[in-house]
Amino acid sequence: MPVIKVLPEPVDLPGPLPEPAVDDLRLETVLGALSDPLRLRIVRKLLLESEHFDHTCGWFGLDRPKSSLTHHFKALREAGVTRQRQYGLERRSHVRVEDLNARFPGLLDLVAAWEPDEG
Amino acid sequence: MPVIKVLPEPVDLPGPLPEPAVDDLRLETVLGALSDPLRLRIVRKLLLESEHFDHTCGWFGLDRPKSSLTHHFKALREAGVTRQRQYGLERRSHVRVEDLNARFPGLLDLVAAWEPDEG
Repeated sequence: MPVIKVLPEPVDLPGPLPEPAVDDLRLETVLGALSDPLRLRIVRKLLLESEHFDHTCGWFGLDRPKSSLTHHFKALREAGVTRQRQYGLERRSHVRVEDLNARFPGLLDLVAAWEPDEG
Repeated sequence: MPVIKVLPEPVDLPGPLPEPAVDDLRLETVLGALSDPLRLRIVRKLLLESEHFDHTCGWFGLDRPKSSLTHHFKALREAGVTRQRQYGLERRSHVRVEDLNARFPGLLDLVAAWEPDEG
């Protein structure tokens, strides 16, 4: 099974953008946010390949318009899958591994094991 | 953790309606089918409260138009979450527990543990 990486949280981070508290996470909302191949790809890459604590959308190398990526990253944050912080002009995301494992054990393992459809 | 019931398969069942093979199940599609409170309710009730091998939509006691229920049951089947069989004029559903556990271990436990939003 792929190993989920959790990198240490740096000090002096900017505060997170608005997000649901861990107790307010809803399974139907989280599953909805993950029911899209691009969003699964984003979350899986964060889980398995993170090089820093959090990453800008440019790091993912996704060939989509910036407005589309902004929408997808916001959807993940608003569902509670990722946490986003504003660093000057850019936003960076990481997965809320601890919160999701506490509320929905095993879900992130399914995402980590997901493979894009080759068809 | 709630216990998922699997009732024995009767003999001489009618054949299943069209559905994806177990190897063709896609995580994004299954999560999409489960990202709806009504569909979570249907699947959870089948997992925890089944009285027979499979059930008609009337058994669920859902206060929705029949056309809406037909749509939701079809969406669950086409995603591979449930198997539907035609018994004369009515269709009955059960959850593909073995197939889903094989492909997405732990996912049905999350559905079984789900609670409807009280808000």
